Amino acid sequence: MRIILDGMGGDNAPDSIVRGAIAAAKEIEDDIVVVGKEDLIADSLKANGYKGDQITVVNADEVITNEEAPVKAVRRKKDSSVVKGIAMVRDGQGDVFISAGSTGAMLAGGLFILGRIEGIDRPTLATVYPVISHEPSILTDTGANAECKAKNLLEFATMGSLYMEKVLGRENPTVGLVNNGTEEGKGTALTKEAYELLSASDLNFIGNIETRELQDAVCDVIVTDGFTGNAIVKLTEGMGLMVLRELKRRFLTNAKSKLGAVLLKDQLRDLKKEFNYAEYGGAPILGVKGALLKMHGSSDELAVKQTILKSIPYVKEDVVGKIEEAISRNEDKDSSE
Amino acid sequence: MRIILDGMGGDNAPDSIVRGAIAAAKEIEDDIVVVGKEDLIADSLKANGYKGDQITVVNADEVITNEEAPVKAVRRKKDSSVVKGIAMVRDGQGDVFISAGSTGAMLAGGLFILGRIEGIDRPTLATVYPVISHEPSILTDTGANAECKAKNLLEFATMGSLYMEKVLGRENPTVGLVNNGTEEGKGTALTKEAYELLSASDLNFIGNIETRELQDAVCDVIVTDGFTGNAIVKLTEGMGLMVLRELKRRFLTNAKSKLGAVLLKDQLRDLKKEFNYAEYGGAPILGVKGALLKMHGSSDELAVKQTILKSIPYVKEDVVGKIEEAISRNEDKDSSE
Repeated sequence: MRIILDGMGGDNAPDSIVRGAIAAAKEIEDDIVVVGKEDLIADSLKANGYKGDQITVVNADEVITNEEAPVKAVRRKKDSSVVKGIAMVRDGQGDVFISAGSTGAMLAGGLFILGRIEGIDRPTLATVYPVISHEPSILTDTGANAECKAKNLLEFATMGSLYMEKVLGRENPTVGLVNNGTEEGKGTALTKEAYELLSASDLNFIGNIETRELQDAVCDVIVTDGFTGNAIVKLTEGMGLMVLRELKRRFLTNAKSKLGAVLLKDQLRDLKKEFNYAEYGGAPILGVKGALLKMHGSSDELAVKQTILKSIPYVKEDVVGKIEEAISRNEDKDSSE
Repeated sequence: MRIILDGMGGDNAPDSIVRGAIAAAKEIEDDIVVVGKEDLIADSLKANGYKGDQITVVNADEVITNEEAPVKAVRRKKDSSVVKGIAMVRDGQGDVFISAGSTGAMLAGGLFILGRIEGIDRPTLATVYPVISHEPSILTDTGANAECKAKNLLEFATMGSLYMEKVLGRENPTVGLVNNGTEEGKGTALTKEAYELLSASDLNFIGNIETRELQDAVCDVIVTDGFTGNAIVKLTEGMGLMVLRELKRRFLTNAKSKLGAVLLKDQLRDLKKEFNYAEYGGAPILGVKGALLKMHGSSDELAVKQTILKSIPYVKEDVVGKIEEAISRNEDKDSSE
């Protein structure tokens, strides 16, 4: 297969992208294409000592930044790395497109260039959500759709379950609905209706969950609207950063505490590693006719490498095709009722 | 003043309530009345060696549990500790009512027994939100109103600012609106409209905030709808519990790490203390014609004591009266525009 990387997206582009590609290339057989300003990327490949032919470069003169209105940018900047990269997936020149750039541009590109899967109302950004000392969950939606209908939440759950099963390898994944209480009948008009739809579906729905339980590995697929999902992911990240910062600061108080910290070095390093989103690979944009992975803007070499590795089952297990099948099954069921 | 305590609410009632009352009584001059099953409370007072007359008991034979539908329970159980306690505030027999019981019953009791402040559409549950290594913020709403209008968010901000200033003593408190991005124009129809209203108000509005920043002490008053606020408070609590659990587990790995943990004992204890909601006192229900404080269901002696202490400026600074004034000023402003 052929993996297309956005060479220009993210805070550390193109260097961390190129280094991640080189690290991944050592572990896989697949071709990697980096799209972006050819001279910059070639320089970075050279500076990082790459001499192989597994990684190639496709030139794109324009860059879409986080500050631009995504829809307009995708429509105008035909020669941007994002537009070119996604078009390569559409045209069969690549199997998956990966970017650490603008989430909005990835979503708009997915919609306009690849198009929605038939029967999907709203594609979703599904984040791999770290659960400390456990395998991660999938959280969907995390910001693609701030305002949702209940039908959208059912779609997110269906797509998230497929990704969890096929890419992260968990069979018959459990699905929980984020709510303000665990009892049936709790919540807003949206969550009440979504509860009904999820209960009636073939998914492994376990009912309402509260955010208090997320770090208890309460379910595999966490379903919520994009506004709440965005708040959850960012708060988790902020709390993780705060904890590491506070431990460091407090453990440097005096000679005694510094010695304690030295003795606990391994444990602190492990904890830090678990708080690191980079370990888990990027966030898939599900519901469009092609495989797209969004990485965190601050992705480093490790994050890029991990995302490239996770993109392989995403493509090989044909998650996009399986979503198409699942959605058409749901629709058949609806129309036969 | 006279502080009315629900002797029957919470996981550890009446014992932790009684012990908290005894601890508070040592530090204040005010009368404390415990409402609930007289024999149980008298037994607990006796068992805890209390012999004074600063704490008295008012009998209430019924108890409203968390499992009951709050509105129905408040209407039917006239002899419950919650209904009797709130009625005492209405009738001038008490200045504030404090409970660790059902939040729904407190809200329903506030609405039906005390009534809304004129001009307030929706009373709010405003939680004191812990920010590690900083003074706490106020988060409003935290679950009283899962579905909100923009006007409600402005009311929450107005009431939360007053509570922050008068009770927690922070002058001209900053107000931030939880959103899925910091730029103006971000968010849902609700947050966009709330942004406009907050910008046009006299509040010290700093704009949109992301949940990633909450532990950076980004603002004094965090404004959001009750669904999102509930998710934030519960996730913060869940993350805090997870961190303490993980540190403990990891630090007990082997003899070396155990020694490290011993050397870091003071620092770990301090961090644990900061994660403890109990330090900050209860959550006020703002917007009703009387002072109500809701404590966490698992409140221990310390939490009860702290909430009693915080109830004093809540009453003495006449936060309820100041909310009435502020809301009528807002209304005058509206009608003169």
